[in-house]
Amino acid sequence: MASDFSEDDLIATLFAPIAGAAGLGLLDDAALIDAPDGMQIVATKDAVVAGVHFFPTDAPGDIARKALRVNISDLAAKGADPLGFLLAILLPPDLDERWLQSFAQALGEDARLFHCPLLGGDTVRTDGPLSLSITALGSAPRGRMARRTGAKAGDLIYVSGSIGDAALGLRVRAAAAADLAWIELLSDQARAHLLRRYLVPEPRLALAHAVRSLAHGAMDVSDGLAGDLAKMLRVSKVSGQVDLARMPYSLAAREAIALAPGLGDVTLTGGDDYEILCTLAPQNAGQFETAARTVGVAVTRIGEVTAGPSELPQFIEQDGAVRTFAKGSYSHF
Amino acid sequence: MASDFSEDDLIATLFAPIAGAAGLGLLDDAALIDAPDGMQIVATKDAVVAGVHFFPTDAPGDIARKALRVNISDLAAKGADPLGFLLAILLPPDLDERWLQSFAQALGEDARLFHCPLLGGDTVRTDGPLSLSITALGSAPRGRMARRTGAKAGDLIYVSGSIGDAALGLRVRAAAAADLAWIELLSDQARAHLLRRYLVPEPRLALAHAVRSLAHGAMDVSDGLAGDLAKMLRVSKVSGQVDLARMPYSLAAREAIALAPGLGDVTLTGGDDYEILCTLAPQNAGQFETAARTVGVAVTRIGEVTAGPSELPQFIEQDGAVRTFAKGSYSHF
Repeated sequence: MASDFSEDDLIATLFAPIAGAAGLGLLDDAALIDAPDGMQIVATKDAVVAGVHFFPTDAPGDIARKALRVNISDLAAKGADPLGFLLAILLPPDLDERWLQSFAQALGEDARLFHCPLLGGDTVRTDGPLSLSITALGSAPRGRMARRTGAKAGDLIYVSGSIGDAALGLRVRAAAAADLAWIELLSDQARAHLLRRYLVPEPRLALAHAVRSLAHGAMDVSDGLAGDLAKMLRVSKVSGQVDLARMPYSLAAREAIALAPGLGDVTLTGGDDYEILCTLAPQNAGQFETAARTVGVAVTRIGEVTAGPSELPQFIEQDGAVRTFAKGSYSHF
Repeated sequence: MASDFSEDDLIATLFAPIAGAAGLGLLDDAALIDAPDGMQIVATKDAVVAGVHFFPTDAPGDIARKALRVNISDLAAKGADPLGFLLAILLPPDLDERWLQSFAQALGEDARLFHCPLLGGDTVRTDGPLSLSITALGSAPRGRMARRTGAKAGDLIYVSGSIGDAALGLRVRAAAAADLAWIELLSDQARAHLLRRYLVPEPRLALAHAVRSLAHGAMDVSDGLAGDLAKMLRVSKVSGQVDLARMPYSLAAREAIALAPGLGDVTLTGGDDYEILCTLAPQNAGQFETAARTVGVAVTRIGEVTAGPSELPQFIEQDGAVRTFAKGSYSHF
């Protein structure tokens, strides 16, 4: 089934139609990209692998969306406008042309949605798991890319959207014996919401311009808020405090945590949020919140950056208790 | 053995030391690249997978070199100067820190040799085969990237280096029963040469400036000369003739073909040459040959481009017989 089409056929019929102008119709060995005047190129690369980042049985369209969106999330958090992406597919033998059609269709829809066209890539047959490696290219005005190293003492810490949904969604999806009690008590609506948030992240690209204009430090939350915040503060040589009462939880996450309070930690240390975590000067907070409202992305102030020496950020419970997370990340490695 | 170091450790100890300035010390989620004034960005992506492009037991340094060099070969054939590369590693559990040290050391040596520093990437543990996906970025003066689509009727066809060594080296490496007769008769020197050419390609980066200044159509030969030439002529809407007596063979390849004449076709349809195939106007041939001599890369005129309609290129034997190769490529797919 799989070998009735060649790589050239695949490129011509499925991928060339979703290529951008810089992809040269996928008829060349390279893409040719204009860096707009006064802009720098922002390049990021994330690979997703069946069994690690998604389930092999996930719908091809959802796999395509996740692979592209985790990369666009990185561009968004850097304040960059997408230029396009290159894709390497390692394709196991059991995935046939029909699977690839669904995959390419969803990929094309997302490429249009995020103005991030396909520029090139490579397709290889493998006996291993389905693996997708994407390099996303974007542009930002010279000197304006938001750095992970830029957080300053006195900054306020903001996060977009809601935290923990995807980590809970992964628990729902995996349905381990220890989790069945709360999963079965969860409302259908909450269950669907958490699963969706795990499967198909929402990169906050609409926030990119506000981030590059106003944020001091920025990154996307992909490996768990606690660990990612610790990373940003460490490389910025500062510390921080987070007010747990301010943590933006979805109704679905609140429902899950109410059923099993231990899930609170899962929301802070699980991965796959793909929200923007950034710090900014207090005097810019109003402008940032207004900009976020204008583009329709929720942002929440969750804490503040404190002077170094760099220590693990402190998470303050409602009763004033202070917690830190020594292992605050979900490791895909 | 494999889990005694984290992805962060790996990045900090093995990969950050070989990162270029645009990689921001590998402390951020993205690289930040300056497009030099008047230059366009050239981006290319090739993945290599154990069992497809190399043998899992190959030395880690050779695997690193091959993964990077096949991408630099694409930049060279486009006439681009390297800016750097992003690397995704899918790492099976049996490869430990020592393996990664050897891998990173060779990668760093090649990054320096080709002025193509590491800019970023991603590392994921997998149960599948070792897979490496590299995106190489380069720059070329606006409008000067050599296109695969640029071949013109009347052009001369040139190829760099020698053809077929790697395809023969793969036969030597695989040592199938049908090949043992000639492999055993081959001199030690020839065997070593062919194996080396398969394992560690020589990207012809020194030729990049001559290619972008003088070539009409250009690509690197990665899937076999016959198939790659057919591809270039087809997308350029022209045809072509190749004089087989002019084909540049190494002494080792000549020795193998003398032992088993059927290997002549292997040299033309096998893959992994990573030589530059280009076409140029006859009046520029002298300048191109001089430029190639100056940078120490052998180039050979092997044929000429003829007017369309696009047909399979004709390969003329010494006795005047005309051959075409309907399946002229080695497929990695």
